[in-house]
Amino acid sequence: MNACVMSADDQALVQGVLAGERRALAKTITLIESQRLDHQQRAQQVLSALLPHTGRSVRIGISGVPGVGKSTFIESLGLYLIGQGKRLAVLAVDPSSTVTGGSILGDKTRMELLSMRTEAFIRPSPSSGALGGVAERTREAMLACEAAGYDVIVIETVGVGQSETAVADMTDLFCLLQLPNAGDDLQAIKKGVMELADLVVINKADADPTAAQVARSHINNALSMIAGRGEDWAVPVLCLSALSAPEAANGVAQMWQEVERFVATRNESGRFQVRRQQQARGWMWQQIERELRQRFRHHTAVADHVAQFEADVVAGCMTPGDAATRLLSMFKG
Amino acid sequence: MNACVMSADDQALVQGVLAGERRALAKTITLIESQRLDHQQRAQQVLSALLPHTGRSVRIGISGVPGVGKSTFIESLGLYLIGQGKRLAVLAVDPSSTVTGGSILGDKTRMELLSMRTEAFIRPSPSSGALGGVAERTREAMLACEAAGYDVIVIETVGVGQSETAVADMTDLFCLLQLPNAGDDLQAIKKGVMELADLVVINKADADPTAAQVARSHINNALSMIAGRGEDWAVPVLCLSALSAPEAANGVAQMWQEVERFVATRNESGRFQVRRQQQARGWMWQQIERELRQRFRHHTAVADHVAQFEADVVAGCMTPGDAATRLLSMFKG
Repeated sequence: MNACVMSADDQALVQGVLAGERRALAKTITLIESQRLDHQQRAQQVLSALLPHTGRSVRIGISGVPGVGKSTFIESLGLYLIGQGKRLAVLAVDPSSTVTGGSILGDKTRMELLSMRTEAFIRPSPSSGALGGVAERTREAMLACEAAGYDVIVIETVGVGQSETAVADMTDLFCLLQLPNAGDDLQAIKKGVMELADLVVINKADADPTAAQVARSHINNALSMIAGRGEDWAVPVLCLSALSAPEAANGVAQMWQEVERFVATRNESGRFQVRRQQQARGWMWQQIERELRQRFRHHTAVADHVAQFEADVVAGCMTPGDAATRLLSMFKG
Repeated sequence: MNACVMSADDQALVQGVLAGERRALAKTITLIESQRLDHQQRAQQVLSALLPHTGRSVRIGISGVPGVGKSTFIESLGLYLIGQGKRLAVLAVDPSSTVTGGSILGDKTRMELLSMRTEAFIRPSPSSGALGGVAERTREAMLACEAAGYDVIVIETVGVGQSETAVADMTDLFCLLQLPNAGDDLQAIKKGVMELADLVVINKADADPTAAQVARSHINNALSMIAGRGEDWAVPVLCLSALSAPEAANGVAQMWQEVERFVATRNESGRFQVRRQQQARGWMWQQIERELRQRFRHHTAVADHVAQFEADVVAGCMTPGDAATRLLSMFKG
């Protein structure tokens, strides 16, 4: 679609990704994550070429507080799926890495068994940039993984900031991992996160089966209070343990069965495709609005006055409407 | 603050509002609600002059589904407050009126007893414009009411669309009215609305006291699942009836006691003022972003292409990032 023709290197990259070559996929994602303008333009060309081959995976978001056992769970799930003849890619949106360059989710080589399998592609979160930018690059990395033929894309995040909304917004099914403590840990369910969940898994349930059942009943109760969730799907709450091997296998199989039931239900109602279409439209507008805000804030006259006007508004000596009107009149768009 | 000097008429308007004259207040709000550009400029001048005299009321948002008894409740509350020597203004954000010109909240003269009292000022919702614009005008009308010396501003809305968020966002305390049916009606609590509530009132509780207690326990349970709500305030859930006179008086007095406790608690922790400051800053940016979106959508080149690009993105034949970049390059800001 771009005026300039794709280079031979980039054409080779596209062919490599489409052939399912891990090295080509990794290089493509590096290109997507690059902050360099020429890289970004190349990435968009490569993505445009890959686009007709995307959309055929199941996109799963997985979130939970640090310590809930996300890595172990994803590893169990991954090994189970490989056993079912599937290939999976694991990506991450790590809000900590975007702020500090450090990472809560850590090095993905924690998933030792999974990372040794050729059927799995594991990629840590891009470690710089604002959340919006990271989310955008993760979405594009997801498209590249789909073009490379992965059947399942897992996008991991932690219960911090807006990252859960961002991940729910780029996946077909959002799975919330919980600990079986009915007390303080349940309180840690952030505002609005329960509403994002299509599936809740109480992990480490074997540590305290009674507590897990109490937690399950509390969560079911909370879910019943959330109306308008999509009438075709009652959010299941599963108890499982990803630690002890046989129970883990059972639990993960049960979880995957729910995923398949979700996909079948939503395909039948047409809502599977509708959600993806809404997401795509939403991403476009998010990016446009982010860029408009940036242009506005960086506009010379606006940048000179915005802090003072904001202070006046906060102090109550200028109405928000007046301040907005004045700043907008400085910004000739 | 504006370059041009205020007209004698508008100066008289300001004086009238500050003297608490209802006619001057009504005319000022009409000016605020006008879509005419010259009126909007005059309204901003008038508001700037009133601004030093604002901020001294308690701003209360009240929401609930049609039929929950909002008008009766607000009338009882208003009469109670007048009995306590207070003056109150009742405004509305009615999402139905912004779309259809009709109104769910209806003619405010429903509050027959209250509307006859000089201590009360009742104003229906502006009946045109998008919700963002209506919310903005209601906020400004609220400031005018404060300058006119009203002690309590009640802003009423219904459980439809985004209007509840908008009202919670312009008030100090958001009160959710509920019916005592534990079944389908409780399900009608919309996504995220419970999280907005600082106070929940189960109205018409006398109709079925047992059901009301069940509803109360369900709502308490749901509230306990919402973390990060502000550690200094546990949201009270009250059962009351606004229909039968003596119980109504008791219930409303109890409700007002909770409001006063809330205000005292939040003043002590400093969060009362912080919430207002955050709201003011948020309003400024909301207005800026709304206007930037409008300018973008109405830009000639963008307007010519946006529908096609959006369709391509939804159909999966253009990446959201690519579409955003192309549209933004057309929009020279």
